[in-house]
This record gives sequence, C-alpha cells and structure tokens, in this order.
Amino acid sequence: MIIIVKKEREEKQLNNLIKWIKGQGLEVDISNGHHSTVLGLVGDTSKIDIDLVRSLDIVENVKRIQEPFKCANRKFHPDDTIVEVGGHKFGGDNFQIIAGPCSVENEKQIVEVAKAVKKAGATILRGGAYKPRTSPYAFQGLREAGLDLLLRAKQETGMPIVTEIMSASHIDLFKDVDIIQIGARDMQNFELLKEVGKTKKPVLLKRGLANTIQEWLMSAEYIMSEGGKDIILCERGIRTFEPYTRNTLDLSAIPLLKELTHLPVVVDPSHASGLSRLVKPLSLASVGAGAHGLMIEVHNDPKNALCDGAQSIVPEQFEDIVKSIDVMLPIVNKKRDL
Amino acid sequence: MIIIVKKEREEKQLNNLIKWIKGQGLEVDISNGHHSTVLGLVGDTSKIDIDLVRSLDIVENVKRIQEPFKCANRKFHPDDTIVEVGGHKFGGDNFQIIAGPCSVENEKQIVEVAKAVKKAGATILRGGAYKPRTSPYAFQGLREAGLDLLLRAKQETGMPIVTEIMSASHIDLFKDVDIIQIGARDMQNFELLKEVGKTKKPVLLKRGLANTIQEWLMSAEYIMSEGGKDIILCERGIRTFEPYTRNTLDLSAIPLLKELTHLPVVVDPSHASGLSRLVKPLSLASVGAGAHGLMIEVHNDPKNALCDGAQSIVPEQFEDIVKSIDVMLPIVNKKRDL
Amino acid sequence: MIIIVKKEREEKQLNNLIKWIKGQGLEVDISNGHHSTVLGLVGDTSKIDIDLVRSLDIVENVKRIQEPFKCANRKFHPDDTIVEVGGHKFGGDNFQIIAGPCSVENEKQIVEVAKAVKKAGATILRGGAYKPRTSPYAFQGLREAGLDLLLRAKQETGMPIVTEIMSASHIDLFKDVDIIQIGARDMQNFELLKEVGKTKKPVLLKRGLANTIQEWLMSAEYIMSEGGKDIILCERGIRTFEPYTRNTLDLSAIPLLKELTHLPVVVDPSHASGLSRLVKPLSLASVGAGAHGLMIEVHNDPKNALCDGAQSIVPEQFEDIVKSIDVMLPIVNKKRDL
Amino acid sequence: MIIIVKKEREEKQLNNLIKWIKGQGLEVDISNGHHSTVLGLVGDTSKIDIDLVRSLDIVENVKRIQEPFKCANRKFHPDDTIVEVGGHKFGGDNFQIIAGPCSVENEKQIVEVAKAVKKAGATILRGGAYKPRTSPYAFQGLREAGLDLLLRAKQETGMPIVTEIMSASHIDLFKDVDIIQIGARDMQNFELLKEVGKTKKPVLLKRGLANTIQEWLMSAEYIMSEGGKDIILCERGIRTFEPYTRNTLDLSAIPLLKELTHLPVVVDPSHASGLSRLVKPLSLASVGAGAHGLMIEVHNDPKNALCDGAQSIVPEQFEDIVKSIDVMLPIVNKKRDL
Repeated sequence: MIIIVKKEREEKQLNNLIKWIKGQGLEVDISNGHHSTVLGLVGDTSKIDIDLVRSLDIVENVKRIQEPFKCANRKFHPDDTIVEVGGHKFGGDNFQIIAGPCSVENEKQIVEVAKAVKKAGATILRGGAYKPRTSPYAFQGLREAGLDLLLRAKQETGMPIVTEIMSASHIDLFKDVDIIQIGARDMQNFELLKEVGKTKKPVLLKRGLANTIQEWLMSAEYIMSEGGKDIILCERGIRTFEPYTRNTLDLSAIPLLKELTHLPVVVDPSHASGLSRLVKPLSLASVGAGAHGLMIEVHNDPKNALCDGAQSIVPEQFEDIVKSIDVMLPIVNKKRDL
Repeated sequence: MIIIVKKEREEKQLNNLIKWIKGQGLEVDISNGHHSTVLGLVGDTSKIDIDLVRSLDIVENVKRIQEPFKCANRKFHPDDTIVEVGGHKFGGDNFQIIAGPCSVENEKQIVEVAKAVKKAGATILRGGAYKPRTSPYAFQGLREAGLDLLLRAKQETGMPIVTEIMSASHIDLFKDVDIIQIGARDMQNFELLKEVGKTKKPVLLKRGLANTIQEWLMSAEYIMSEGGKDIILCERGIRTFEPYTRNTLDLSAIPLLKELTHLPVVVDPSHASGLSRLVKPLSLASVGAGAHGLMIEVHNDPKNALCDGAQSIVPEQFEDIVKSIDVMLPIVNKKRDL
Repeated sequence: MIIIVKKEREEKQLNNLIKWIKGQGLEVDISNGHHSTVLGLVGDTSKIDIDLVRSLDIVENVKRIQEPFKCANRKFHPDDTIVEVGGHKFGGDNFQIIAGPCSVENEKQIVEVAKAVKKAGATILRGGAYKPRTSPYAFQGLREAGLDLLLRAKQETGMPIVTEIMSASHIDLFKDVDIIQIGARDMQNFELLKEVGKTKKPVLLKRGLANTIQEWLMSAEYIMSEGGKDIILCERGIRTFEPYTRNTLDLSAIPLLKELTHLPVVVDPSHASGLSRLVKPLSLASVGAGAHGLMIEVHNDPKNALCDGAQSIVPEQFEDIVKSIDVMLPIVNKKRDL
Repeated sequence: MIIIVKKEREEKQLNNLIKWIKGQGLEVDISNGHHSTVLGLVGDTSKIDIDLVRSLDIVENVKRIQEPFKCANRKFHPDDTIVEVGGHKFGGDNFQIIAGPCSVENEKQIVEVAKAVKKAGATILRGGAYKPRTSPYAFQGLREAGLDLLLRAKQETGMPIVTEIMSASHIDLFKDVDIIQIGARDMQNFELLKEVGKTKKPVLLKRGLANTIQEWLMSAEYIMSEGGKDIILCERGIRTFEPYTRNTLDLSAIPLLKELTHLPVVVDPSHASGLSRLVKPLSLASVGAGAHGLMIEVHNDPKNALCDGAQSIVPEQFEDIVKSIDVMLPIVNKKRDL
C-alpha cells in the first residue's frame, strides 16, 4: 500500500500517521517528492481500511499495490484449483457444461430436462428452487418442494445438482445439494458467504450486478476464510447503460481472472443477455475467452410453453451448441468432461 | 403493459399469446400498425413476468406502462406517509437529522457522540454494530455487543436508534432497535426484506449500489407486502465510472421519488462520497433537492483518532452544518423537528 | 411510437397533442386504459423529438416502437451489406483482419510491420497518424507526415489502409486513404460524420465510449443520410466501473447488431482492454460471437521498444492468433479473406 | 508517478525501464518491497504515457500521483479565476444565471425570452443555433441564421450570449459570440478544443456524457495550452443505468472541482434530467453544492407551444426559482450578479 501525503501537512500529523501504521505491524518506507511525500507500507496490509486512510486530512491519495485477497490469489497458489463434483472436474484443462431449466416446475419437467441435457453433454444439472425476483408478486420458486424435485432428478439421472441459496437459515435444506449457488444479488451478503463457507461444500459464486472483479474475489475470500475451498466463479454480466441487453457480459474478466486467481471460472450466457437467441454466440465467445465451463438454461416443455416459438433454448438447440463447443475446445487446449 | 408483436409472426403464435394473457385475468386491446401489432394489456399486470414475455420469439418489445409497485405508489396513496419514531416524524414538511458514528466502538464513544449530536440538533442516533465489509479481514463491527452499547446510549439520551441488520437470523436481537436499517448491499436480499417486513418496525431502506429507482421501490414493496408500512428511503450514491468519489450521489432521485411514492426520503452524504469535506456541500444540496432528512456520520474522539486532523465530521462541524440547514429549510417549506 | 397520457389531464391538452401529432403527418390510434390513455402513432415517427414529447405535462411516458434508424435497419434492407475495399470484402461470410501499429512512427517501422502482418494474414493496414490523446502534452501523432508514411506502406505492400480522421477540415488529406476511421470520441461529432458521409468512402465507425447500440446506429445513419453506404462498425469496449480493464468489451453487441443492421461489424480487442495479453482470448471470443473481422495492434520494433518484453503484440504472436482463428472460422460459417 | 514492477522480472528489463525513464528527463527512486519493486518518478511526468507503461510485461501497475493537468490545477494557481463577460463575473463569490431557450426559433421568440429572463435576473442569454441531435432526421438548429438572431437579441437587451459550436470550421462565425460553448459530445473533440483555445474567447466547457472529472480538466487543459484562459466548467449530468432521468446530475463534482481547479463551475439542471419539473429542486441543490452559477432553459411562447401545460420552464417559474436562489446565496457565501 502506498500513501501519498499532502505537502502542506504538519510534521506532527505525519508522525502520528507513521506511528499508527507501525502500530498495525507494518514497516514504512518514506520518500519525499516535489509535491508530496510517499509512504510505502511493507507487510500484510490486508487489514488496513483503505477508506479510513483516504479520509485523513493529510492524505492526498492511497493506492493498494498488493491485491487484498490472499487465499484466492494466484500469486500464493500458482496451481489451478480443481473443484471435483461427483467425479466431474472444474478447472485446469477441463471444460464442464451445467444445464437445466430456470425454475424447477414439477417432477416430469425437471427429470425430462435432466435426461435431455445429460444426453446432449451436460454433466451438472441446474434448476432454481428459491428464485430471487425483483417483485414480491412474481413467482418465488417452489422453494423446499423444488429442492426435493431436484434431488429426485439427481437420483434418476446420477447428475450432481447446483441450485441457489437465498438465506443462511436454509442451509440445512441444502445438505444433499452438490454445489451451492450464491446469486448475483447475494454476492455481498457477507453473513451468507460465511455460513456457506462453513459447510465446506462446493460453491458457485456469481458476480454481482455491479461489482468489480476485485470485490468478487473478496467475496470468494469470505467463503475461503471460513474453510470453503471449492469455489467456481461464474460471470453473468454486469450492469451498464445499454438497454438492448439485460446485462453486459464481461468476457475480459475470464482471462483476467485466470491471471489473478487459481479458481475455475464459468460463464452463464443465458442470464447475461436475457435473450435466448444470443446464447449460442455468447457460448462460443466464452469458450474463446478461455472459460472453464458454461451454465446454460434449457427448457423442454413445448406443450405448456407460452408459445410455439418457445422462450428458452430447447434440447435440440443445446445439442447444437455442444457440438460447436466440441470443435472449438482443442483450440483453447481444453477437453470436455464426458 | 404493452406488447409489440413482430410482423412476421404466425397467426397461431399470436393467438396462443393472447389466450395466455387472458388466462392471467387480463383483457387485451389489439391495434395493428405498419410494422408491428401492439397488444395493450388492461388490468393488474404486476404478476406478469416481463422478461418471460420479452423472450418470446414473436415479441419484438414489451413496455410496462403502470409501475409494478402498488403499496409504495403515490397514485394509489396520494398523501405523504408520515413515519413516526419516538415522537419524531419523517415525511410531509418535517425535516429530521440522524447522526452518529460509523461504528460503535465503546460505551464512552457512543454516549458522548450521542449527547453531542443531540445537542446540535440530531433527533435519531445512528451507529454500526454489524458492519458489511468488502474484506473478511477488516473489522466486522462489535455485533451483539455493539447493539447493547447503542441501547445504552438510547437510555442515556432518550434518542431513538437506527442500526443495520445483516441477516434474518439476527432479527430477535433487534427488538429494541427503533429503526432497522437495510444496507445498500442487502437492498435485494429478498428473504431479509420479508422477515423485516413481518416485524412491522420502521425500516430505513438504503438504495443499492447499482439499483434503479424502480428496483428500490420494489424492495420497499417486498417489506410492505409483509405488513411493514413505515419505510424511510435513503439515497446514498450509486456506482459510476467516476473514481474521485466512492459513489455518485443521485440527487435527482429525491424529487422523482416524491412524485412516484408517498414514502419519506433522506440522504446519506457521508457514505456517498467517502470524503468528509464533501459532507457540508452535499448536505445543503440534499436540502435544496427536497429531502425529508439527512443521515450524517459524526465522530468525537480526537484522542484515539488516527490523526489530529481527524477523519470524520466532528461535532463542531456538524453544528455548523445544522445551522446552515436551518436557514435553508423555509425555502423548501420544511421545518426541522426539535 | 406510443405515448402514454396521464389520467388527470384536461381534455383540451389531449386534443392539442393529437392535433400536433396529426400536423406532423401521422395518424393516431387512441385506446383508453384504467390508469392512462395510450396513443399509438402510425407513420414515419423518425422526425418526432421524443424528449420534447416526454417533457409535456400531460405525458406520462413515451416509448419508441420502431427503431429510429432507417438506412442502417435490417428490416428495410434484409441482405448483408458487403463493403469491398481493394478487393477485400467485409460482411456476409467473409472474415477480414486489419492489423498494424498504434501510431505511425517512421517509414521503416510502418513498412516492416505492414509486410509482417500481410505475411501473417492481415489484408488491411491500420496505423494512427492523428492521435486523439486525453492530454495535450502527450504525443499527438505525426499527423500529415504520418498519412504520407502510411501511403508509402500501401505502395510497398499493396495493402489498403485505414486511419483515423479528427476534423472535417482534414478531409482533403484523406483522399487516398481507403477506409476513413471515426474514433470512439468522435462517434457523435455530427458535423464530421456528415462531411465524411459526403466523400462516399468506406468508413470504419467505432462505438463511442459510453454510447448505446442505438446511438451508434444513428451515427451510421448520419453518414448514410449524406450518401455514405460502406460502413463497417467497430466494437471497442464501453466504459463501466471495472478498473482492471480500460474498457469492457461488449461482445453481446455483435449478435445484436447482426439482427438490427445489415452492416458488417468488427472488433478491436487491443484498445478495449488496454492489455496486450488479453488480445488473443478476446480475439477468439470475438470470432465466437460472430464478428466479421478483427482490428489488432501489432508492433515490430524490439530494438527501440521500451523493454525486451515489449508492450504490444509482435508479429509472431499475431501469426499465432491468426492460426487459431483459422481453425475456428468454419464453426461460425466464415472464411478468411486471403 | 509510481510504477510497481513485478517480482518475477529480469534485471535487464528493469534496467531498460529505468534508463528509458531517465531518458524522459525524470529521476527515479527505487524501493524494494516483499512482492514487488516500486519506482517513484520525480519530475514532470505529464508527458509520460501511462497506458504505454502499464502495458509493459514487467509492470504490475502504474499510479499517477500528481494530477496530469497543470494550467487548470489549483495547486499551481491557488486563487480563483474570475471570468468576466460583458461586466459579469464568473467565479469567486459571484453567482451568475444564464438563461434562454433550448433552440433559437425566430426573432420574436429569442428577443422576448431574452427580455423576460433579463428582467427575472439572468445576466447571460443562452440559445442553441447549432444543435447536436442523435438523429440526422431531427431539427438541426437554424445554424448561421440562429447566430444572427442571437446577436439581434444581444443588441436589443445588452445581454452577452453563449451558444454552442460544433465544428472548428465555424469559428469565424462565432466572432461576436461572448462565450463559446463546447457541448458534452464534443468535450473530447480535441481539434475543436485547440482551435477554440486559440481564439482566447471565454469558453463554457460542458462535461462529457461519460467522462471523469480528470478527463474534463484535461480538456480544459487543451484549451489553456493554446492560450485560452477564461474557461467556465458546466456540469450537466453523466450517463448511468438509471432510466427515469436522461442523465444523473453529479453534484459531488462541484465541491471536488473547487478543490482541484481554480476555474468557475456552473450547473445545467435542464439538460441533466430532461424533466422540467426537476429544474427547481436541482437548481437549489446546485446552489447548496456550491456552484458559481446556473444555466437554465426558459421558453416563453405558450401560444405556439405544443400544449397548454408547456414543455419547459416559463418565465414565471424562472422568476420563482431566482427568488429562492436569492434567499439561499448568503448561506453559501455568494452574491448574485445584478
């Protein structure tokens, strides 16, 4: 951490600041420039509150040099973390496809979709039981009953399941869930992160709606600081001023994350844009960017679907996407888990 | 709600869509334009999932005409809601000042600050017991012990208190807290909103980091749908690309909210910018914009403070701000609660 | 265009509005809902000032249904526009690679880079003569002399050239330039767009720093309304709150643009992130997203480069990227122009 | 400027970098930390291309410590710049009100509005002759004829005028214009900034749609580097994800600018929100934030206006705003110029 001290300071203020820094167990390098004095803090600065320092009268600016995340940091853990779920590996040169419906609706639906996506190449089944909805009047998911249905589909197909948790008070209900998903809106629900970390279960951590990559890794750090090690990051788009898409998928985040952290990273092209016809191009783009996997929404119930044209990727389209992915994977030195 | 249907649709698809809409208990007005057909939905469309409709093959665009919030909507509740807390009123022509330290540190600190801000004109005491921090290694607040200290300060001064909750599992601990604060990061923690709504206690609902005004009001709606009526909205800045300030205070939101909703709205100028020297100008700006009150961080412990210059507004500066506010209030037809 | 009129209006105001709309040569469909009246405008609404209408007292909301762009609109021109430059085709199933240095520095540099990128597969040479720089103290490019050097490289290699224009007063100097580039900061320099349109030359139109896709297409429309037809759109990242990258590449824009417009679209992965080590993954991602081409910065002067490690993609790395692209192109049904 | 060098570098690369820095006329302080080496650059770093340095293989991060603007920097020019236009002063404790219609339409309109706003307290007349419009099909302003009408209104009322320029080729036409306005979309039209700077005329420089405060000051620096000294900054809202308002007015920018620069800063509340009913609260908010003035759109032609309710502030409403401002000014230690 580097602290730039204003020229027009009192010596006493500077001495107090230096004393305080040393009191935090850090060493201080002082260098005097033309317009300011620069303090270089040496040691573990992760406990220093950068906003507090910035707010001091004599401080012109503070810059963090080391990333504030440690457990998640590639520098201290150079090798890729491989998250293994029911024999399927996330990370390294493995490529995984998670698929399933947005919401679990009934047994027939979830089992049929599970079988269809398994046949087409998915290894993990997704499905929403608890649904975070902007409106209290919208369908909130089948909740506990939805979890039961997911577990039945797991039993029928042998596929591990991933589903979203929305409150620490539900953790016991998730004991047979293979991967606990933390949704975008809960990425900084710190109490939930801690509780989920204590379960030591694999976690799929979605990026928050308007969070930086660093904040995202700090949320992974919350889980890891409680003992959770198996974290899969999931890019799902960030909020921008562009109205055509629900969110703007940030694919630069993929190669950046691979530098910054050893954790695997997958992409959710379905939620990012909110437009099913963008799922294929964005899936291929994600593979090109180097993602370790994809999470794709697939629906298979044309009879009850709202309109013949259907509002989501159906199994045939999903199969077609998987086929294209298979041709691409060797270019990015990955192999799909079968 | 208005649905714009593509020209190149099949008649059967359109009929299916119309049937589905009618099945939701709504009427449909159909008008055929040159390049598209427009369906006008008449009735209560708040249960319609706009994203689902948008994703249909034959739909070009969907626009909501009525706001999706009802309990919070000024249209259905034209009179200002007055939230009364310990005899102090939020809303209408009342102006309230909430003040106190960022974090509760110890009894002496919180009681001294409470007395100082009360003397200067604050009517409600704020103080963080549970602190949402980006880093798991940063101070997380005194938690339960912090709540106890706040209650002691309340006893000593008679000031009602407001403090942030971070998990539904803590609700019992908040039974003597006068106003429960929902922080920016929890604005869309829907399970928490519901549980807090059930307590029927006054709630101070901060705007999320990157949330629209409509989403904010939908979060108020979550609380109201469970019986909570006394909601104070709190603007605290939104995330933009500007790096000089932590967030960009959105003061246009104040007059807009006063049109859209009957709920009172206050501004937190301390968190918005992260710079204590901006607190006074942004406080006066908030009054000018028509806010029903302010929430200001005040610190009073120069001895233990990091540096003589101090990192936060001290009671003398707070008094000065209150004096300026008092001169301004008649211009905006408000009176400060004493 | 749909105008939602407030319930609490005076009849006279509504009649005035309807009269005004008809005076603009449009027809009006009126439908009365529970809480508002909806006016559907039939005819060419592209001249209607939506902000003016929105600002009327009796108007609650206005929504455009038809896109305001016409010449650039896929609906009216269903076939792909093929922009041909020196025998090389942009659009359809063609894939083009534009490459060259950020700035033209001297004859040796530009000619050597040109030869190297041509050998590796580039068909168009890029190079900055006029450089838009945030600071007036930074190098502003070789300007006229830079144009001369580019033309010399064109002569030596036979490659058509693309370079940025920064003022309408420079247009005469660009008469031998094959593709005139409009930079991100000039995307809404409307006087420049008109003048460039009058030249009828091919234009590479970069997306503005914080512009929507619709605004971008409206800028293409400015060029087209003056007779320019051969426009190549270039996505180069948009501004968000993420500080790790200079900009956030918006790859969803690629499939969206292919629906909305018949114009070809390429991606500049070099400027988007500002990090040369992200160029390869973002190039492959762009191909996956369906881009019609790439524009890549290549540097070849290790002796004068600042450091051995070099600050930009060198020809060897560029060759490697092109090889990977060649494997990918059949998956997206494109072929590289040779 | 501080350069953080990666630990895993080659010594030769570091030496090359240091040599290059010294070749730019700067001194280098080197300090070795645990995970990185920090180079402190001493001297005038404004010519250093920070993006170039950041892109080097061995560089982990670069941070600017000194602001890159010099002429506009409060540090080197501690006293407020007072821009005097026709006897009216911008800056210091002066408060100016600029008012007039969005577009100049005809002689009667502009002269009548001018008289009305002058009577109510405005000292400078605004009016658009050249109008930057998103659509080429929308009204582009009366252009030259509009300038003539503005000059006639100036003659009639004695009010100095401010109006927007859109191309360097129009500069001669602006010779009798008192203040040349650079619009938001042209804030980084660097060729235009230079040409306008050469005229040495007062300039009203609007903030770009999505530009940082630092970029804004660098654009002022462009004008100043060519000899222009009399620059008035104008905050007009920035682009965010909030759809209710056209832009989000950034009032924190006002107190920040007053620290960073000696130039006066005014606010345009009319364009920021696009909603005339927000003009009064945002005007008072701007005064509270410490602005040196306001620029307000006023319309006075109810007969030809689209609807009785009128789409813009009319003179009566403007008078009312000015009266409220007058009560507020003493609180912020300013006096209105009469």
